[in-house]
Amino acid sequence: MILQDTIVALATPSGAGAVAIIRLSGNEAIPIANDVFRSVRSKDLNRLKTHTIHLGHIVDGDKVLDQVLVSLFKNPNSYTGEDVVEISCHGSTFIQQQIIQLLLRKGARMATAGEFTLRSFLNGKMDLSQAEAVADLINSDNEASHQIAMQQMRGGFSNEIAKLREELLNFASLIELELDFSEEDVEFADRTQFKELLNRIEFVLKRLIDSFAVGNVIKNGIPVAIVGEPNVGKSTLLNALLNEERAIVSDIAGTTRDTIEDELVINGVGFRFIDTAGIRETKDVVESIGIQKTFEKMEQAQVVLYLFEGTKFQELGYEYLSEIEKIKNRFPLKPLVIVINKMDLLSETALEEIKQRLSSADLQLSTLFIAAKNKAGVEELKERLYSFVNTGALRNNETIVTNTRHYDSLLKALEEIQKVNYGLQSNLPADLMAIDIRQALYYFGEITGQVTNDELLGNIFANFCIGK
Amino acid sequence: MILQDTIVALATPSGAGAVAIIRLSGNEAIPIANDVFRSVRSKDLNRLKTHTIHLGHIVDGDKVLDQVLVSLFKNPNSYTGEDVVEISCHGSTFIQQQIIQLLLRKGARMATAGEFTLRSFLNGKMDLSQAEAVADLINSDNEASHQIAMQQMRGGFSNEIAKLREELLNFASLIELELDFSEEDVEFADRTQFKELLNRIEFVLKRLIDSFAVGNVIKNGIPVAIVGEPNVGKSTLLNALLNEERAIVSDIAGTTRDTIEDELVINGVGFRFIDTAGIRETKDVVESIGIQKTFEKMEQAQVVLYLFEGTKFQELGYEYLSEIEKIKNRFPLKPLVIVINKMDLLSETALEEIKQRLSSADLQLSTLFIAAKNKAGVEELKERLYSFVNTGALRNNETIVTNTRHYDSLLKALEEIQKVNYGLQSNLPADLMAIDIRQALYYFGEITGQVTNDELLGNIFANFCIGK
Repeated sequence: MILQDTIVALATPSGAGAVAIIRLSGNEAIPIANDVFRSVRSKDLNRLKTHTIHLGHIVDGDKVLDQVLVSLFKNPNSYTGEDVVEISCHGSTFIQQQIIQLLLRKGARMATAGEFTLRSFLNGKMDLSQAEAVADLINSDNEASHQIAMQQMRGGFSNEIAKLREELLNFASLIELELDFSEEDVEFADRTQFKELLNRIEFVLKRLIDSFAVGNVIKNGIPVAIVGEPNVGKSTLLNALLNEERAIVSDIAGTTRDTIEDELVINGVGFRFIDTAGIRETKDVVESIGIQKTFEKMEQAQVVLYLFEGTKFQELGYEYLSEIEKIKNRFPLKPLVIVINKMDLLSETALEEIKQRLSSADLQLSTLFIAAKNKAGVEELKERLYSFVNTGALRNNETIVTNTRHYDSLLKALEEIQKVNYGLQSNLPADLMAIDIRQALYYFGEITGQVTNDELLGNIFANFCIGK
Repeated sequence: MILQDTIVALATPSGAGAVAIIRLSGNEAIPIANDVFRSVRSKDLNRLKTHTIHLGHIVDGDKVLDQVLVSLFKNPNSYTGEDVVEISCHGSTFIQQQIIQLLLRKGARMATAGEFTLRSFLNGKMDLSQAEAVADLINSDNEASHQIAMQQMRGGFSNEIAKLREELLNFASLIELELDFSEEDVEFADRTQFKELLNRIEFVLKRLIDSFAVGNVIKNGIPVAIVGEPNVGKSTLLNALLNEERAIVSDIAGTTRDTIEDELVINGVGFRFIDTAGIRETKDVVESIGIQKTFEKMEQAQVVLYLFEGTKFQELGYEYLSEIEKIKNRFPLKPLVIVINKMDLLSETALEEIKQRLSSADLQLSTLFIAAKNKAGVEELKERLYSFVNTGALRNNETIVTNTRHYDSLLKALEEIQKVNYGLQSNLPADLMAIDIRQALYYFGEITGQVTNDELLGNIFANFCIGK
């Protein structure tokens, strides 16, 4: 154990509730707790087993502060790997404050943000990417981001990286061994096997790097723009999409959740409707005010829903199609759904006419007919939105990168691996190749924390909440 | 155990934090938890000892929801007296929701407000006044109210009532026994001893009833009115009083506390400055607009600070003294402090002159000279405020009644006891006296919950938070 002083913090959210947890960790955690704890059965905390719970009172001299439960975790079997005591007290902020103040007087000090998890990392209880996943887990607010964080916390990502790193390290050692025998021109490292490993690493790195795009949108929600002329039904559609979700959330009595305005979760994946305030109030007719504003919105979005009114589309079909073509040319890869709203006002013939016009335009459009007011077609639209998410990786439990720091390290590692591969092909001397391999190893190590420094740790753990 | 179904609720405050606790209680608490828990050491929760903690994962089929710690409490050694399982999970609202939903699907139901404590009461783990103290404890925000709630939760109040009730019950039985032998004219109950007991009960009841005045102000804060002409320095004084307190509060890193506007805690007793917004903006010169408004403020206050400007008092002393006399006549028992502000602007002689004038007025005034701007005299003022609180009871750890329900029952009990006492003096027949005694016993029982009904319980526990 590197850090030895004893830290204390509130581990539960601040505010009043039934119960609050105050957490102590460090060499003196048990003696300090014992000093202020009077067990109902006169137990001495110093002599009790790990993972046991004890009823008693927290006392400040003669004054009883609260009746509490004390949970004991003895090193190394605790979150931090140190001795940990958790005091479960009544959830008044006054009591929390009194107990924390008392523990501070008895020799503990306030924990800084993320310090419990930092200690866990420094004591080898988890690697850096797992520690980062803890913060992601706490911040996760939908199924997909939760699942990714969970997998990362359980070591999915680290294992994959660590395995490759070890194989690469093996070759690095063999190649460096060659350097010692450089005058004898021997090859300890089998070049064919090495080539095969490099290709495999490159493949995995590329897959991980690609997954970042998915991971990032899953973590932050996929931005969706709904564009269209005024009164075409944008806000009605948005409400139709959102209301159902809200009903599901409020279904569970007692589990209130902060309403996330304009965020929709479909099959556990979050979708964010960007600049919806603007969209709701927008007065920009595509033709008259110009397409620039619409383009800007589309730029930010990962998916665009272009909404038209059925009867108007029937009327102005060709003009609209030329608009759509402009958009297609400008954003050839962006998923775009042409949504024809108010289909209930269309006759069978009109519906057919529009369908034909859309398909004959040869733009390979994804189209959908809805009546937002009656919620007709809204479920299909949700399915369509979800279909744009590359959830293959999610379903197959593949590792998905969500962390920008990891993404950067992976990019740098890939660059180095490609250098090594190039060097191998062009028969670069072993000593030069060894440098590139070491550099790649360094970037791998950065991800899991095998290579680290105080500044990096400071940056990572500063984003944690106090008490974690 | 009366209630047997298994209830679940979040026990920690809602919102994101490092840790959240989900609590299960009931016959099926352990089997339900076991059904969704995969211990890292493949333990079966059903077979584990009480008061132990186990690391593992909450799983929904194949899906891992979170890594958690599970704490086991086997009946009757738990808060509710039933089997209790506490799941300590990561503090994301999403995870909390997922786990609670899972437990609901597995057969638990959402707990209603206070239902855990209700079960604790119904299972005989605590009496009603102790249960009520739990809610008071959670809501306590200063030393004094915390101390009273703590004492009540530990049974101080109940013990006192229960002891008297038992003695009274003894006599009731003896007197009722006499009824069976009514034709023989025997006296099983020693009338002298009975008289002595009634006097003792009356004394205790009166003390408890009197303590309510103290208890109530301690629980809710003592209302203080600062009155005086505009620009006399009311808001400066208020700031001088409050700012110091705020500095103390913000001293403790990491323990944020909601700022309670215009509430001051002196030696653990809360003081509330009533209608201070009004006071700050008030333009009512006592003489010109009339004294009515000032009287209204004084009516609501338990302590009045009447602020004067030194130099002006020197000038208008006699007019002011007649004002003060009016107030004294109107509120003869209300603690009033005449505070002469801006004393730094007074010469020695002027100071002496004012002092003499105040003392010669023969109004037995409590006076104090301050300079609010420089905080001179502010500490003395605080001490003066605190001196008005009858803290004798607090210091001597006497029982203090803070609960209106208890107060009402005590008043009714006293009335019945006085009837019994009167009956005893006027040789009322035993059968009539027995009715009054039973009625007194009833009111005693109402306090501790020996006598109760669903409506009463409903009212009490509805004020609790969910999860407690």
